[in-house]
Amino acid sequence: MPVEITREYIDQVEEAIEQQNAEFLTSSMADMYPADITTVLYELDTAQSKYVLDLLDPEVGAEILSGLDADVRTNFLKSFTSEEVARYVNLMDSDDAVDILNEQKVQSREEIISFLDNEEKAADIIDLLHYEEDSAGGLMAKELIKVNVNWEVRQCIEEIRRQAEAVEQVYAIYVVDDRDRLIGRIAMKTLILSNDDTPISELFDEDVISIETYRKDTEVVDIMQRYDLEAIPVVDSQGKLMGRITIDDVVDVIQEQAETSIQLMSGITEDVEEDDSVLRLSRARLPWLLVAMVGGLLGAEFIQIFDSEIMLVPAMAGFIPIITATGGNVGIQSSSLIIQTLASKQIIFDNLTQRLFKVLLVALINALIISSLVMGFNLMFNDNPRLSIVVSIALFSVVMLSSLMGTITPMILDRFGINPAVAAGPFITTANDLLGLGVYFFVAHLLLHL
Amino acid sequence: MPVEITREYIDQVEEAIEQQNAEFLTSSMADMYPADITTVLYELDTAQSKYVLDLLDPEVGAEILSGLDADVRTNFLKSFTSEEVARYVNLMDSDDAVDILNEQKVQSREEIISFLDNEEKAADIIDLLHYEEDSAGGLMAKELIKVNVNWEVRQCIEEIRRQAEAVEQVYAIYVVDDRDRLIGRIAMKTLILSNDDTPISELFDEDVISIETYRKDTEVVDIMQRYDLEAIPVVDSQGKLMGRITIDDVVDVIQEQAETSIQLMSGITEDVEEDDSVLRLSRARLPWLLVAMVGGLLGAEFIQIFDSEIMLVPAMAGFIPIITATGGNVGIQSSSLIIQTLASKQIIFDNLTQRLFKVLLVALINALIISSLVMGFNLMFNDNPRLSIVVSIALFSVVMLSSLMGTITPMILDRFGINPAVAAGPFITTANDLLGLGVYFFVAHLLLHL
Repeated sequence: MPVEITREYIDQVEEAIEQQNAEFLTSSMADMYPADITTVLYELDTAQSKYVLDLLDPEVGAEILSGLDADVRTNFLKSFTSEEVARYVNLMDSDDAVDILNEQKVQSREEIISFLDNEEKAADIIDLLHYEEDSAGGLMAKELIKVNVNWEVRQCIEEIRRQAEAVEQVYAIYVVDDRDRLIGRIAMKTLILSNDDTPISELFDEDVISIETYRKDTEVVDIMQRYDLEAIPVVDSQGKLMGRITIDDVVDVIQEQAETSIQLMSGITEDVEEDDSVLRLSRARLPWLLVAMVGGLLGAEFIQIFDSEIMLVPAMAGFIPIITATGGNVGIQSSSLIIQTLASKQIIFDNLTQRLFKVLLVALINALIISSLVMGFNLMFNDNPRLSIVVSIALFSVVMLSSLMGTITPMILDRFGINPAVAAGPFITTANDLLGLGVYFFVAHLLLHL
Repeated sequence: MPVEITREYIDQVEEAIEQQNAEFLTSSMADMYPADITTVLYELDTAQSKYVLDLLDPEVGAEILSGLDADVRTNFLKSFTSEEVARYVNLMDSDDAVDILNEQKVQSREEIISFLDNEEKAADIIDLLHYEEDSAGGLMAKELIKVNVNWEVRQCIEEIRRQAEAVEQVYAIYVVDDRDRLIGRIAMKTLILSNDDTPISELFDEDVISIETYRKDTEVVDIMQRYDLEAIPVVDSQGKLMGRITIDDVVDVIQEQAETSIQLMSGITEDVEEDDSVLRLSRARLPWLLVAMVGGLLGAEFIQIFDSEIMLVPAMAGFIPIITATGGNVGIQSSSLIIQTLASKQIIFDNLTQRLFKVLLVALINALIISSLVMGFNLMFNDNPRLSIVVSIALFSVVMLSSLMGTITPMILDRFGINPAVAAGPFITTANDLLGLGVYFFVAHLLLHL
């Protein structure tokens, strides 16, 4: 069973490393899952982690390395020679091996490949390195079980025996013709329930969904989710079977997508985590802060045009925050909804006018409620009825305009192939701040000087 | 292969429904995947969809119903009699069946169950209905292949034959003792490579990770991801095998979690989609707008205390937006980072002081950069050096304070069992608006009247 890693255990591990007590480390980790050992390594420094990894069974080490975060891994592997890395890469599934090689500089990548003593694996890896990382080809592994349509069940079982060690989880057996083109699949349970001399041609299911190597990883996710697939075979443009993608890789893509959206929405430009360096964290956060700063300075210059009006009615200044905040919030709500729609692709036909009409209707309801409530409050507690009217008209317009802008901006970005989530963050709030200020002072200028 | 659903096809379908042309519908949909038919149904209204569904093979209909969004499904099924629903539920996996029953009112739930003619399924469903929907028991399906440790491979294959139709994807065969307690698993490939008379006790792998029925769905996700499992057996407190959860259900949980976080961050309180009703959409968006409105009105009242100062230095008003915007942005960045850490649980020990020190260090760098740039700009383009100093001191303090608040608030919410993502949305911007205004006017009050 999975174990709970305790503070005490980490302390013991650190002590054992210091005393070079290999005995304690190997025996206490012998029954642990690689994922649990990884948790321990995250608490150690690089040198300590390497000491532990070197003591472990290389198979376990390979699995630990496969499971590390890319950033952590790149850093960690800097303390390894190319030969050491190759020893682990030898033992990995080809897709994990390629991920690691892609993280290395070109020179050490070549070096590691030259040290690979499993020739079949090396050939697979070199082949996989040709594909874009975010394509189906970049996600796939070469390990799969394929059988010729002219075989019988007996040969098929022989092939499984031959591949049994390389292919950890056999989801399905792929059937190819003499030219290696994918023509169908057989489920393991069909095979197990058939006689040894049944021809594959009588058993296999022609209905197999495949995907071409050049497709984007997001398309892979969409198709696997849509058709509820636990694995999908990957083919080249001639229909030749090239590899397969399993659902665990897709889960990683889904989580990355979600994390990217959330980071874009919160105005963080690099893929960072809390335990990154202070400088990296600052750098990831600065760009949007600077954009917002420029927006804020523009706003300040704009407001200064109305200095004389503010001097006459200083209470005007008080309502600046409610105007900008409402614009920002409405804008983010609107863009987040449209981004969700754009991502789900459930709606296949766009009826733009109808959609915008609905957006405006929703905005109208909230605009009326917010502006009436604020009007009521101001008439009761503030003694400038004309300013109260100005504030409510401005709020009303800001809600309407921000809804529209929050809806249209992501659609335009999406059309140009930019991740629309970028529009749900500081970009929309900064733009809406300026929009709100413009509306507010324009209305004030018109009404306060009647 | 999956087909592209075109506008033309939808038009043809609508026409065929109007003319009651069942022939066209059944023949054109005969080769389509259920997921593709679902795409067509999303373009039709309820009556049209029901007409199409009634024409389809019930197995296909059951799969379509299993795959619908919960909201859409609840609405759709209102036009079905309990007997009709039962016909489809009969053909579903027990976990999907329970999801649908949980969406029904108690009375129709009982009615549907009474119409189920597959008694084993009915018993499974009644059993599953006892578990909380967001627990491992609520996620699991009863369909699995289990074998007794005292059997031989031959009996095991017989059992697979018996269950072959019910269990769509056999990830592993679970091994139980005479008291039905889970003691291990066998991979399909092990079975296929063994002789018929080999005892199971010699083949099975004792190393099986299971989870108790009462565990939260998020724990299921964590464990399955951590140990890279494509399926996990679920046991009761006595270790008795109760069901299994497959990775496709977990993918749904992951996506729901991501969507919930994004909605919370964008200030939308209900789980809505763009094609929900105008009223529902407005209602989902109003609560946070109202909170922000109250915050904005408080801000207005607060600023009015400084009316006389603004009258003297009206340019003060101009810098209100940059102060509030910077506070909001920094706050959201900080909370989004800490929320990511809280969710990943990769860091097992909290060293609070050290973490806060790092947060402040990152804030310090950005605060220095932003406030110096703004100072430079103001000294060059504005003729009030004292106000320039006030603005930059306020900006500096706001970045520091908002970082701290953005980090601490999610941690506190998390401690009290509230989803910390709620803090990364309008809540933090509203709070930081007030914080920013307080700091700005406090500094202004001190420095402008020296």
